[in-house]
Amino acid sequence: MKVCRRETFNAAHRLHNPSLTDKQNTDLFDKCNNPNYHGHNYVLETFVDGPIDPITGYVIDLKILSDIIKDEVLEAFDHQNLNLDCPEFENLIPTAENIAVIIWNKLRLRLDAKFELEIRLWETDRNSVIYAGK
Amino acid sequence: MKVCRRETFNAAHRLHNPSLTDKQNTDLFDKCNNPNYHGHNYVLETFVDGPIDPITGYVIDLKILSDIIKDEVLEAFDHQNLNLDCPEFENLIPTAENIAVIIWNKLRLRLDAKFELEIRLWETDRNSVIYAGK
Amino acid sequence: MKVCRRETFNAAHRLHNPSLTDKQNTDLFDKCNNPNYHGHNYVLETFVDGPIDPITGYVIDLKILSDIIKDEVLEAFDHQNLNLDCPEFENLIPTAENIAVIIWNKLRLRLDAKFELEIRLWETDRNSVIYAGK
Amino acid sequence: MKVCRRETFNAAHRLHNPSLTDKQNTDLFDKCNNPNYHGHNYVLETFVDGPIDPITGYVIDLKILSDIIKDEVLEAFDHQNLNLDCPEFENLIPTAENIAVIIWNKLRLRLDAKFELEIRLWETDRNSVIYAGK
Amino acid sequence: MKVCRRETFNAAHRLHNPSLTDKQNTDLFDKCNNPNYHGHNYVLETFVDGPIDPITGYVIDLKILSDIIKDEVLEAFDHQNLNLDCPEFENLIPTAENIAVIIWNKLRLRLDAKFELEIRLWETDRNSVIYAGK
Amino acid sequence: MKVCRRETFNAAHRLHNPSLTDKQNTDLFDKCNNPNYHGHNYVLETFVDGPIDPITGYVIDLKILSDIIKDEVLEAFDHQNLNLDCPEFENLIPTAENIAVIIWNKLRLRLDAKFELEIRLWETDRNSVIYAGK
Repeated sequence: MKVCRRETFNAAHRLHNPSLTDKQNTDLFDKCNNPNYHGHNYVLETFVDGPIDPITGYVIDLKILSDIIKDEVLEAFDHQNLNLDCPEFENLIPTAENIAVIIWNKLRLRLDAKFELEIRLWETDRNSVIYAGK
Repeated sequence: MKVCRRETFNAAHRLHNPSLTDKQNTDLFDKCNNPNYHGHNYVLETFVDGPIDPITGYVIDLKILSDIIKDEVLEAFDHQNLNLDCPEFENLIPTAENIAVIIWNKLRLRLDAKFELEIRLWETDRNSVIYAGK
Repeated sequence: MKVCRRETFNAAHRLHNPSLTDKQNTDLFDKCNNPNYHGHNYVLETFVDGPIDPITGYVIDLKILSDIIKDEVLEAFDHQNLNLDCPEFENLIPTAENIAVIIWNKLRLRLDAKFELEIRLWETDRNSVIYAGK
Repeated sequence: MKVCRRETFNAAHRLHNPSLTDKQNTDLFDKCNNPNYHGHNYVLETFVDGPIDPITGYVIDLKILSDIIKDEVLEAFDHQNLNLDCPEFENLIPTAENIAVIIWNKLRLRLDAKFELEIRLWETDRNSVIYAGK
Repeated sequence: MKVCRRETFNAAHRLHNPSLTDKQNTDLFDKCNNPNYHGHNYVLETFVDGPIDPITGYVIDLKILSDIIKDEVLEAFDHQNLNLDCPEFENLIPTAENIAVIIWNKLRLRLDAKFELEIRLWETDRNSVIYAGK
Repeated sequence: MKVCRRETFNAAHRLHNPSLTDKQNTDLFDKCNNPNYHGHNYVLETFVDGPIDPITGYVIDLKILSDIIKDEVLEAFDHQNLNLDCPEFENLIPTAENIAVIIWNKLRLRLDAKFELEIRLWETDRNSVIYAGK
């Protein structure tokens, strides 16, 4: 049984690889390379897979899962500039893919080992990524 | 090839485990333990996986699948109080997880063995569960 | 300039007019007359119309509006049985229309007279009502 | 890591199997058998699974994926009559299932072999199909 | 108090003005001029404005409104080719605007004069029209 | 007859009034005052009200309206930092309200005087503003 909690956060970012030339960065990331940043309303779906607890009828209390997501993800990224405010992206380009890896790693540490974890992160309603830790 | 049909139903429920004390129930289920019930607009996605029939171009006629869902799920749960009106939950806490197991079992009986079945049930647009029968 | 804040709450209710016979109630309200209640995820849009404050660039801080809605509406109705738990509906059928009137009256008392107020309340994604106080 | 791009197109179609009698077609396809066609706003989600490129932080640039989808799918099907304008359906009933197979095959040819491909095609917001090439 | 009911239908259409040349039609309607038609999932919101009936707590029973919409709109247009199957468009281009006028006129005849009527018709999730009869 | 076109853009911004102290700015704008900016996926609905042209069946060709919105709004704001990149906000706090005024003024100049104009701008799916020019 898999359960899913949806949360949202807003952040600024810029896609830029410092090991490339400015022209290479522009060619590669186009408008997403704007040095003054742009931003998104990120939507995060967190899927936790495990057995149903017969006492509660829950896999995991989604209120508890929501609190973990707020602690680990919203506290870190909501209303932040991912490039400037978040040490996680000091040496990592904050693409949706890389943000998803970071989020997955943060949540994995907080969940019991009996659970499998998968996340889906939307950058816009047209672009999203899915990550299950491997 | 997997096909999916979305249906909706509205129901009241209460989360309460009679083997726990009132305090334990309140600690565990919080507002969902309200003795007078609360309710949801449930959204049910039913995924059926199987081969395409070369005569029809369908895996399964979604009109037929919709009728099965209406017979088995909407007839049983729509505009009902899951705790009081539905024998399925006489001894089972109607969490989204347990409702999903009951729905999956009902639909499984009505589908040809050649099909694999998975369902996703949303309790709210932030909380959902996914079940594939094991 | 009109600003809008969306909030959600879940509640159980039953449509029943005690001055009618049981048969009249069933004919009129059909499945919504279930004596054991059913429920909904209500979605509430609150529109506040007024001038932009030149200091803040806001009509009204939506965080403040959200807090007012939480105080007046979610505190009163979320995870409640509208018929049994909410004195507002002791002598009033909790149709979407009547719930909207009650909510509008509650919010009107909390907003400065310079603002015009309109609300939209969805009972399901197919049924909604709009009320502006007259 | 799986990435997903959502695109939309509008098309007319008719479900009809020329090897069946008119009555069989009507029994089978009902309103979808209308000889004058009807139509849909199709929504296509394209999932591409592969490793993150350390230079770009992307699995695949979604702008490039979007261009491939526009070339292969929107160019071929948007604002078309699938039965009359599209040779792909000259001998194939344009059910959502069969359209998904055709789209998957078109996209597969344009993607590097290192990527796995899955698509989800919605015919309406209630009916969708998922295909991963086998 | 305004109430709203959402319904959907699917249809094929072609935008073409027979009093213009083929080139003028192509310049004007572009891909929507395809002689073989294309199609849409139309979404119709019907707003009815009137007083709350104190007996029912309803402005109008949305089940009754839904039945009227099904009779007048879905029966006429769902799974049809608007140009070929629907006499309403024999001499009228089936743009969203003109479809909305036709629908509004049909619904107006079926509603009590005490009600005001407004409709919103989506052709796609990006394009919609709103009509209140004048 | 009112027609509506939906477009989207992504931008970074910061809410800050330079005539207030830092403490006043933090008290007022809270997380939105982050000096390193945050961002949003803005959704813009543009409503144009006017008569139906009997030649085209359109109020205004939504392709033309979309091009005007792209020229005036997306070209100016998409993937930009509203505070740093956009002269419109050099002396104006980029709240949703103020962005809506700027957008309305830009679009008003490009539309024939016979049309009335209204816009709705979503900053998130919970917060939006509506402006009709006065």
